[in-house]
Amino acid sequence: MSGKLHVIGIGPGHPDQITPEAREAIAVATDLFGYGPYLDRLPPAAGQQRHASDNREELARARAALDLAASGKRVAVISGGDAGVFAMAAAVCEAVEHGPAAWRALDIAVVPGLTAMLAVAARAGAPLGHDFCALSLSDNLKPWPVIAGRLRAAAAAGFVIALYNPISRARPWQLGEAFAILREQLPPATPVIFGRAVGRAAERVTITALAGADPALADMATCVIVGSPGTRVVERPGLPPLVYSPRSSGADR
Amino acid sequence: MSGKLHVIGIGPGHPDQITPEAREAIAVATDLFGYGPYLDRLPPAAGQQRHASDNREELARARAALDLAASGKRVAVISGGDAGVFAMAAAVCEAVEHGPAAWRALDIAVVPGLTAMLAVAARAGAPLGHDFCALSLSDNLKPWPVIAGRLRAAAAAGFVIALYNPISRARPWQLGEAFAILREQLPPATPVIFGRAVGRAAERVTITALAGADPALADMATCVIVGSPGTRVVERPGLPPLVYSPRSSGADR
Repeated sequence: MSGKLHVIGIGPGHPDQITPEAREAIAVATDLFGYGPYLDRLPPAAGQQRHASDNREELARARAALDLAASGKRVAVISGGDAGVFAMAAAVCEAVEHGPAAWRALDIAVVPGLTAMLAVAARAGAPLGHDFCALSLSDNLKPWPVIAGRLRAAAAAGFVIALYNPISRARPWQLGEAFAILREQLPPATPVIFGRAVGRAAERVTITALAGADPALADMATCVIVGSPGTRVVERPGLPPLVYSPRSSGADR
Repeated sequence: MSGKLHVIGIGPGHPDQITPEAREAIAVATDLFGYGPYLDRLPPAAGQQRHASDNREELARARAALDLAASGKRVAVISGGDAGVFAMAAAVCEAVEHGPAAWRALDIAVVPGLTAMLAVAARAGAPLGHDFCALSLSDNLKPWPVIAGRLRAAAAAGFVIALYNPISRARPWQLGEAFAILREQLPPATPVIFGRAVGRAAERVTITALAGADPALADMATCVIVGSPGTRVVERPGLPPLVYSPRSSGADR
């Protein structure tokens, strides 16, 4: 029997946001690899082995998973959110490119999932309703000047900006610096949405203005969405506002 | 009884890519609104009324749905892909902003779904594995110079670019012009992925290089992903290549 490797996105956290396709791919796996807290979201299955690892060991995890698939196992690599957005699918591809030739012959498939910005946006209205970008603030693997340049370019061009990996204990200042850069380019009233742990018990969604956006509202489980100059806030008495980016935005740039 | 309006994303087309959350929200609705072909993907339910309309009537559809919700019905507005990405959630918010005050008191919720670029990316590997943007090529609601400017800015800053609404009978030249703009900024070998009707019977995924990218490979059901200068193609004997954007991309810009 030849092995198989699925890289599977299980969405931002709510069990009802896991697609049936992902559930099925997980169910037929002999071995699950992933960051411990992601694996903990899945119910145990008889005869299925789990290989939990730290979230900074992506390449090593990818190699271990490929190695086991090459031995004939049906391996599932689990990502939070979507498997292809700042997640394990790129690490698996990178491992294949630089690994043994046999890995290129493996049956590899990526199963997409809801990425965090979509779930956060849904809670707020439709802030991603028009042109947007997704940017990781982690400077572990790219230099900060590249990130700063992308922030400037995206804001100047009128993209809504979703920030992934906004902050961590090892990267405490990057989000504050990002807000400072964006304040140079965007109006003070530009809406900013902090979506933390959306779909989970610890969910907290905060809508604020760029002028007063406080990096302390974000942690590792947060996705931050910064509006474009066209993004609107519709106040509703007794209800949270609706934040949306009009389908016709851009004419003002 | 007070009415309710759900805006629901049903994913790019495969029934197993509809989340249980979306299925449940559809099941409890008294009335479904949407573009006819999207409604046709859902099994009929007893006692549930369908209001199909053309895909260029988004604002009128949003108003009709809000009106019915205000009369006490449980209304679901169906979007293909994600409800918040170039889709109905923004139209609903826009209608609320400019509509009667009563609409602001309605119970409105957005249920996210898999947006097309995630499903297309999964088929190719992990082209969205690092910083990327999503851009609509439709100039029905924004002037072409804005689109051209965003293409230039995104390519120059090193974003992978997902193109929505790349082409239609009424907009036949925009995708070719977009490729021409991108060829001025990106290497000829930059990978381009045409993902058509992913997850449906008519699925066709084509991977090519920017130099020879042919707009005729796209139609209204296609999402096009253009790599960044860092995006890699991993050839595999007898299998389609893996296209991915490394987690460390950007250092070369």
